[in-house]
Amino acid sequence: MADHFGDRLCTAVQIKATSLTVGVDPVYARLPAEIREHRRMNDENDVAAAVDAIFDFCTRVLRVVAPLVPAVKLNIAFFERYFWEGLEAYYALISEADDLGVETIGDVKRGDIGSTAEHYAAAHLQNPEYTGLEDVIVPDAATINGFAGADGIEPFARMADAQGKGVFVWVRASNPSAAVIQDFVDAEGRMFYEKLAEVVGQVANEPHRIGASGYSNVGMVVGGTGAPKAAELRARYPHVWFLVPGFGSQGATAEDCVRFCNPDGRGALINASRSILYAYENPEYKERFGDNWEKCIEQAVISAKIQLAKAMR
Amino acid sequence: MADHFGDRLCTAVQIKATSLTVGVDPVYARLPAEIREHRRMNDENDVAAAVDAIFDFCTRVLRVVAPLVPAVKLNIAFFERYFWEGLEAYYALISEADDLGVETIGDVKRGDIGSTAEHYAAAHLQNPEYTGLEDVIVPDAATINGFAGADGIEPFARMADAQGKGVFVWVRASNPSAAVIQDFVDAEGRMFYEKLAEVVGQVANEPHRIGASGYSNVGMVVGGTGAPKAAELRARYPHVWFLVPGFGSQGATAEDCVRFCNPDGRGALINASRSILYAYENPEYKERFGDNWEKCIEQAVISAKIQLAKAMR
Repeated sequence: MADHFGDRLCTAVQIKATSLTVGVDPVYARLPAEIREHRRMNDENDVAAAVDAIFDFCTRVLRVVAPLVPAVKLNIAFFERYFWEGLEAYYALISEADDLGVETIGDVKRGDIGSTAEHYAAAHLQNPEYTGLEDVIVPDAATINGFAGADGIEPFARMADAQGKGVFVWVRASNPSAAVIQDFVDAEGRMFYEKLAEVVGQVANEPHRIGASGYSNVGMVVGGTGAPKAAELRARYPHVWFLVPGFGSQGATAEDCVRFCNPDGRGALINASRSILYAYENPEYKERFGDNWEKCIEQAVISAKIQLAKAMR
Repeated sequence: MADHFGDRLCTAVQIKATSLTVGVDPVYARLPAEIREHRRMNDENDVAAAVDAIFDFCTRVLRVVAPLVPAVKLNIAFFERYFWEGLEAYYALISEADDLGVETIGDVKRGDIGSTAEHYAAAHLQNPEYTGLEDVIVPDAATINGFAGADGIEPFARMADAQGKGVFVWVRASNPSAAVIQDFVDAEGRMFYEKLAEVVGQVANEPHRIGASGYSNVGMVVGGTGAPKAAELRARYPHVWFLVPGFGSQGATAEDCVRFCNPDGRGALINASRSILYAYENPEYKERFGDNWEKCIEQAVISAKIQLAKAMR
């Protein structure tokens, strides 16, 4: 079981008894005062100080959430903006999360054709063997952009096969303008994102990609409020894990999100980022826990798990 | 003129008298023997040695090609596979190219929604102001993925506006499977990529984005053989710069590519990568120039320029 990503997710969801995952999208200006204030030079304009503070914050967040959820999702853009200093911190946090026994998803949305896709796959799904990078651990899975079609997806899927990793292809976003592009309709009323899902489904359903659990190592990213035909997608691709962002701050309700679970409760990872990461900004938690920001985050995870569990009933 | 990317491209194309751009996609195994053999430890498995060799090669390539072409395109995937070590080299090469007076395009294909897009835009289109990164220069333009629609494109376009930079949105690829996705047809016979081009065109045609030259700072990436309706695209978006990859090794002919130029010869950057970067592998050049690999690259640039000039007549 352990070497197949789809299987590992089944185990993780069962053990943690939830589909909830936590997105780690750290923004310096929103870090708890305690962390911003004790860093060297206390200066967000110093790249080393800013990255240090973010690393410290994220490490402590991971310690709180890892025992409670099957997976965490790290959004690389929030690190990439600190250039190579940020990238080093990103991979260090993947290692931290790995040590804590939680599945890790690199939200990198990479995508290109041919050999470029192979190089991206090497960066995000293969532990480097170079002298000088021996300790680097890449995520258990990466999100990718499937715009180039099957031969842009396959290099990532093949790398995932070889490395025991997973891939989530971005199929439908939930931002306001996504519909203009992604719901583009053909003569039969079929939407573009359904066509893209079909291409991803073909890659995912290759027999060697289906693990003992019945799930593939190739999944789809579908926004919680984004897919007009969520139930159809779920039914049409029973072997696929859906990664469902947008629970909480982006406006998707627990009910919206659990539509992507199979009847047995598996098959979807429902991600909340800001509503958990910055729970200490929430007046309700603030009143209950004061400056104990880790307690606020813990409570937000527990509340979100309860919401999802209720919606599943 | 100088502060508007669309205008700068007009000047650069005029001065260098060509639409040809060179793509820098370095692969260690294909580096000239001279470079691979003199590096410390002579070991491609040592990340520092590999990145050193790649940096040395690319610097020398830039010195050869910068006087001959208006722009160079660096593909970040080939650096990203060396993790943060590679990323540092990527930005150092952007600086080198900038010093050589050539426009630089970061081929990064980033794309996501909302605040994530803003963070990517900061990483790729804004010179950092952090202490510790004062010397970093970001590219003059970046390629992005427009899958999220207008509100995934706007954060990049706004950053480009503010920083005097440019954006090229990936509209149509030329890999075999791209057609399945990108030529998805609606009831009126309109293809998905045309819809995407329309969205990009609206962003590009905002009056404040059009420079004195009549060109926008927001362009499109369209594969040389990829767009069934190239002439229509050109006519429909006269203010847009097209970045046309695939000339040479990927099979697009000079005639395929110059369809994206306006009648006055402006409006398209026609990119060749491998056919120029590895010209020293070409038996014809090898025979003429022996181990002088820089001479081979120079000659390949000159030949490609002549091919394009002939096709334009």
